Amino acid sequence: MERVVRHFQEELDVLKSRLLEMGGLAEQRVRRAVQGLAEREHDLIESVLIGDEPINALQLEIDDRCLKLLALQQPMASDLRLITSAMKINADLERIGDQAVNIAENAIKMLAAPPLKPLIDLPRMAERAERMTRDSLDAFVRRDVTLAREVLSQDDEVDGLKDTIFRVLLTYMMADPGTIERALALILISRNLERIADHATNIAEDVIFLVEAKDVRHHHEEPTTP
Amino acid sequence: MERVVRHFQEELDVLKSRLLEMGGLAEQRVRRAVQGLAEREHDLIESVLIGDEPINALQLEIDDRCLKLLALQQPMASDLRLITSAMKINADLERIGDQAVNIAENAIKMLAAPPLKPLIDLPRMAERAERMTRDSLDAFVRRDVTLAREVLSQDDEVDGLKDTIFRVLLTYMMADPGTIERALALILISRNLERIADHATNIAEDVIFLVEAKDVRHHHEEPTTP
Repeated sequence: MERVVRHFQEELDVLKSRLLEMGGLAEQRVRRAVQGLAEREHDLIESVLIGDEPINALQLEIDDRCLKLLALQQPMASDLRLITSAMKINADLERIGDQAVNIAENAIKMLAAPPLKPLIDLPRMAERAERMTRDSLDAFVRRDVTLAREVLSQDDEVDGLKDTIFRVLLTYMMADPGTIERALALILISRNLERIADHATNIAEDVIFLVEAKDVRHHHEEPTTP
Repeated sequence: MERVVRHFQEELDVLKSRLLEMGGLAEQRVRRAVQGLAEREHDLIESVLIGDEPINALQLEIDDRCLKLLALQQPMASDLRLITSAMKINADLERIGDQAVNIAENAIKMLAAPPLKPLIDLPRMAERAERMTRDSLDAFVRRDVTLAREVLSQDDEVDGLKDTIFRVLLTYMMADPGTIERALALILISRNLERIADHATNIAEDVIFLVEAKDVRHHHEEPTTP
């Protein structure tokens, strides 16, 4: 029995490390799309448009791992919540990867025209959204509710950057209709980044539920970590 | 034992009906936000901005039901996938409700200015996104892969409407900078509707996985329904 338990804990560790890997892939794709836009590097953007196979394969593998753990191990209480949270987080990470593709699609359009302005707030917003993603996953792996709550508070900063970007670009559009299409593309990219921050927020909320939830079985739950 | 099994099936039926209820609430909120915008009815939009309590409570209840079923019943194979799918679908429905709030926030801004143009494509896009949501849930409840695949194909139509809306509003903005702010708000609302269609697509994909997935336990799975 002890061996079975140890094996189960090892499986959970593998699951966590695969989720971190998935998060790393998603984050890398977002970073490449935004860097490609800011530095006008066509190849970098292109690599995002064609490279979603590894992340899709990993998503299926993680889902499969979770279902196997649920079926074979019949986990209870916090292990059960860990696995169902992992399934939800997996879906959020895959959608962050999708947003990288959306950013890349808008970025390609931007490269076809002269640059509208140096990009400062948009890379900053991307950096914040990436950090939220990374922190939310670290919070998951370490069951760190404090870090998860920090992610929730970072969301306000991202929203603030989104509003600033909107106002600045609106000014461009009003002053010169020739900027409208490019300004619009940048506004839409900022909304893609907002969506990434939303996914990170969802992950952080899952972590809080995972750690703080009441016993779902109405009897003997192991105490939650402080 | 037979009573336990019957009880379990009854619980699964309750779970399905609660998800349908959740879908109905989310859909109603989207419909109200768009109708409030199209007919310039302030109260209707306001009802969306303040009325997210029932859907939030239902989300928690459904998640709780799923965790209890997993913990107490230790379901196998397709019942296991049914419950984990229900948890993912629950998250998608809650986010559809969130999009209704985003639409309502942009709609309120629109009402502060004279109407830009009669809205035709946007209500049509909303209607399609609502139908996709409804169909994806019906597909889930009936394990209907054909209907789920129809949802996936409806997504192209929604994308087409999104592109039309974008082109038309871009023309307005180019011709008259005085329309820029209102046109932008409408473009962002169309992106919220796109996101709703994305969530319905996710649900449809879950249904296909639910019905067609291979056995996750590498042995005796009950045959999937044809």
